[in-house]
Amino acid sequence: MGLTVKPVEITKINTGESGVVPDLVAVEEPLEIRIGFGAMDERRQKSLSVTMRTPGHDYELATGFLITEGIIDAFGQVESIKYCEDVGRQEDRENVVRLELKPEVNFDLKKLQRNFYITSSCGVCGKSSIEAVHVSCKPVQDNIRINQPVVYGLSEKLRKAQQIFEHTGGLHAVGLFDLKGELLLAREDVGRHNAMDKVVGASLFKGEIPLSNHIIMVSGRASFELVQKALRAGAPIMAAVGAPSSLAISLANDFGMTLLGFVREGGFNIYSGAARLALSE
Amino acid sequence: MGLTVKPVEITKINTGESGVVPDLVAVEEPLEIRIGFGAMDERRQKSLSVTMRTPGHDYELATGFLITEGIIDAFGQVESIKYCEDVGRQEDRENVVRLELKPEVNFDLKKLQRNFYITSSCGVCGKSSIEAVHVSCKPVQDNIRINQPVVYGLSEKLRKAQQIFEHTGGLHAVGLFDLKGELLLAREDVGRHNAMDKVVGASLFKGEIPLSNHIIMVSGRASFELVQKALRAGAPIMAAVGAPSSLAISLANDFGMTLLGFVREGGFNIYSGAARLALSE
Repeated sequence: MGLTVKPVEITKINTGESGVVPDLVAVEEPLEIRIGFGAMDERRQKSLSVTMRTPGHDYELATGFLITEGIIDAFGQVESIKYCEDVGRQEDRENVVRLELKPEVNFDLKKLQRNFYITSSCGVCGKSSIEAVHVSCKPVQDNIRINQPVVYGLSEKLRKAQQIFEHTGGLHAVGLFDLKGELLLAREDVGRHNAMDKVVGASLFKGEIPLSNHIIMVSGRASFELVQKALRAGAPIMAAVGAPSSLAISLANDFGMTLLGFVREGGFNIYSGAARLALSE
Repeated sequence: MGLTVKPVEITKINTGESGVVPDLVAVEEPLEIRIGFGAMDERRQKSLSVTMRTPGHDYELATGFLITEGIIDAFGQVESIKYCEDVGRQEDRENVVRLELKPEVNFDLKKLQRNFYITSSCGVCGKSSIEAVHVSCKPVQDNIRINQPVVYGLSEKLRKAQQIFEHTGGLHAVGLFDLKGELLLAREDVGRHNAMDKVVGASLFKGEIPLSNHIIMVSGRASFELVQKALRAGAPIMAAVGAPSSLAISLANDFGMTLLGFVREGGFNIYSGAARLALSE
């Protein structure tokens, strides 16, 4: 496994005083995710995505990505996962993951349009690639309730679990909580989408998808894409330390998700699905 | 121009008290960037990217994107820019921008591999798509110096220019400063890459690329991709409110850029190119 934190020497400036001191920074490296067609043939494959990520939990990240981007729906559709050894540069060997899907998986390239940054088959104006931004999601579990005080504690618990952030100040985090507010799992990454995919992938490995009785918490803002990823994992409640965007709220509303923002000790905002918040007694 | 801020009704919870109150959130909508081949033929085009952005300054964003992703090197290579009217849904009409390049521009599809999330021509293992993450950059202007006190003020000046953030708490910002620390330009967006592309695009429209005598400041962390975009614009100094990643530092070193992090009133860290910081007298 690659390093998640790297020692560096920096010059620290403080009101005119300067000094060279050792410091730690979060590691960022590219991860390429490939889908193979037929385990026997190394050459039959497609490159799905290159994401800039913090090394570690790469299999979770790659598998979570397939779920949250709508490429697969269940872990049972994956045949095998491995680092791809057949890459050009030695240093990239742990930066390419290849997933083999079960032969019966109906792997529809059109589902991937959203990542298809260059639609080389394009040429017909008219239908917009924009519609491909939407991945197929289902409405979330309706009948669950949480108590307000449960929400108050989420932010602090996630922060305490951010080990790398503690050292570097440089990472996003996503935490998975049960409905009583107990932290089950946390992942950190330089990319917010990656931290989410790692949490979803880890849950998948444990057989816990859909996350119908869970709260997903993000350390930053709630964007459309993060809400969509949480919906793909079946989470009925998403909480954010920061603000949500307009489209994040609208998507949460469409699928009955409870979206909470500016979550901190003693207060938070409800942007959708307020009915799930039981009054505190 | 689309809305940048949207009014919503939220439920605000504060130590057990709750109330429904009006609020403002940052607008997030998809922007598709297309390259046209021949102004006379609407159908000859390629879709380059769909980015989730805050509407406004879309032409800057699209043109800046072409520069920072290495597709063009100068504004003179652009023939025309317009919203694409020939899209399916009425509401997407201001979400698709089409740029016509000059006929002599050598538009190399291979340059775009980095965005080519599905390399449909793939099938040969060996050479990794990872290498395509690197866009061609040049070393930055060597002989400039700035005084330390100039850096102290950057963070506060950028913050004051963040009008939308003020209302929503939900946007990234990128600011362009001269070497005396005067703010020349600031752009906000739900996406940090978009805010950078808007600043680069705006500078391009003013004929100010390369930004050889400028400081670029980002409101969050300094990632590899943000440093690369700033390098493409020719900026010799990049400052960040947050932490840099390992790869951001290494890229800045490779091209002689000065990279500053944790920039605040009275202090900051220098991760590369310390020689440009003149001692304060």
